[in-house]
Amino acid sequence: MSVEIKGTTRLLGLIGDPIAQAKSPSAINPIFVARSVDIACVPLHVPPADLSTIWAGLKAMPNLVGFGITLPYKQTAIGLCDTLDPVADRVGAVNLVRRERDGSFRGYQFDGKGFVRGLRSRKVATEDRDVLLVGAGGAAIAIAFALVEAGAKRVVVSNRTVEKAEALAGAVNSYFRRSVARAGNPVSTAGQLVINATSLGLKTADPLPFDPVVLKPGMTVAEVIAEPEITPLLLQAKARGVETHSGMHMINSQVDLIADHICEIWGEVT
Amino acid sequence: MSVEIKGTTRLLGLIGDPIAQAKSPSAINPIFVARSVDIACVPLHVPPADLSTIWAGLKAMPNLVGFGITLPYKQTAIGLCDTLDPVADRVGAVNLVRRERDGSFRGYQFDGKGFVRGLRSRKVATEDRDVLLVGAGGAAIAIAFALVEAGAKRVVVSNRTVEKAEALAGAVNSYFRRSVARAGNPVSTAGQLVINATSLGLKTADPLPFDPVVLKPGMTVAEVIAEPEITPLLLQAKARGVETHSGMHMINSQVDLIADHICEIWGEVT
Repeated sequence: MSVEIKGTTRLLGLIGDPIAQAKSPSAINPIFVARSVDIACVPLHVPPADLSTIWAGLKAMPNLVGFGITLPYKQTAIGLCDTLDPVADRVGAVNLVRRERDGSFRGYQFDGKGFVRGLRSRKVATEDRDVLLVGAGGAAIAIAFALVEAGAKRVVVSNRTVEKAEALAGAVNSYFRRSVARAGNPVSTAGQLVINATSLGLKTADPLPFDPVVLKPGMTVAEVIAEPEITPLLLQAKARGVETHSGMHMINSQVDLIADHICEIWGEVT
Repeated sequence: MSVEIKGTTRLLGLIGDPIAQAKSPSAINPIFVARSVDIACVPLHVPPADLSTIWAGLKAMPNLVGFGITLPYKQTAIGLCDTLDPVADRVGAVNLVRRERDGSFRGYQFDGKGFVRGLRSRKVATEDRDVLLVGAGGAAIAIAFALVEAGAKRVVVSNRTVEKAEALAGAVNSYFRRSVARAGNPVSTAGQLVINATSLGLKTADPLPFDPVVLKPGMTVAEVIAEPEITPLLLQAKARGVETHSGMHMINSQVDLIADHICEIWGEVT
């Protein structure tokens, strides 16, 4: 869908390197158009050596209302934002910078909320559910907190480096003031929600993130990987009669959340 | 007309302060769409204190192919471009910065060519014509050179500060190596093309740029002022049965020239 750009149009950037592959502008602009808000999302190619120069330039342009962040700047951005939303701070990564009412740039993170919203959009239950979370990096951190917030009963964090899994489980328990998460091996329990939050599956040569023998009918396997839309893990799950949930749903749900969040301040209807 | 923005889309900025009133994005985007080139023109609000910071940021973004310049940066930009096209250098003002193939920013000026193209679009003759050019600032300089290039027979430059008129006439004669321009008072000759290249007429309280008693049928009066489209001077000319030519034509013709110039390097059809 197309967008009409006028002198009054506000810009939402998207920074990354490379940027040509980015799908967000095509995904979010139709939402702004449908809401009759005068905002256009535009790709901004940011070479690594120039991040701080470009960041300063973006900061100085009042009609730029913020920018999405894609690879490789999600972690670096933490140190460049004026303030951080607690979720971004906890995850150690930013995927949206918003210009606040006072002109400052605040960093936000929508991976966790986007993941949960993606599950809901496909009617995958989270309430009172046992979760096996594979991985303990940025995506896993975001998802662990969001799932407990969404009512998950127990979260087992499984990670190659056990210390990282223990640290994540400890952080979750300390935040929610109860023992809801623990580090452990990928063992199956009936009706479990199993999540791959590692990057394994992004490349064709990757091994599976865990042995699919744990997967049983009645469980759900969810991916954070959106490209390929059907990962080898999801194929294995399908073959075992297990419900699958593609990483695409997290991406699509994030676009809605980001549009909401930008429009909260900058979305007067024109 | 609307434009589809994807990850691959290149950006042509438009810098100014204020920027909300700018018409170029709505005018140039339909041209890019009609040519099937993946470029979008977007407004960039640049507060005066931040021009150099923003300029550096724009320079560092490879998918930004350049930017138009509106008030108040046309003169300041001269000192910020890496190189200047001779026309911009001569006029002392830039209205388009283009990223060249080597990544550098080169300043261009399309007022003169745009003005002549605007006359042609309305079949106003320039070949062998007597010209009375009122004003000796940036717009007048650009137009004087472009008109002589377009075959004008003689150019009389009339300006409140006579020295500036003499300097302009001298520069034109020296460039074309013949005596084609001179400074002088606004006196009419039959069939003359009379041009207001001052800013008088922009505000309602402005006096006329010259006494309209010199205007006679058979002459043409042309404006550089586009807003209002019909200036008090043009009204006076109409009342005297004199052909009129609005400043809008210069603006519209420049948009075509600028699209051509950007597409020369960045306009592969997608």
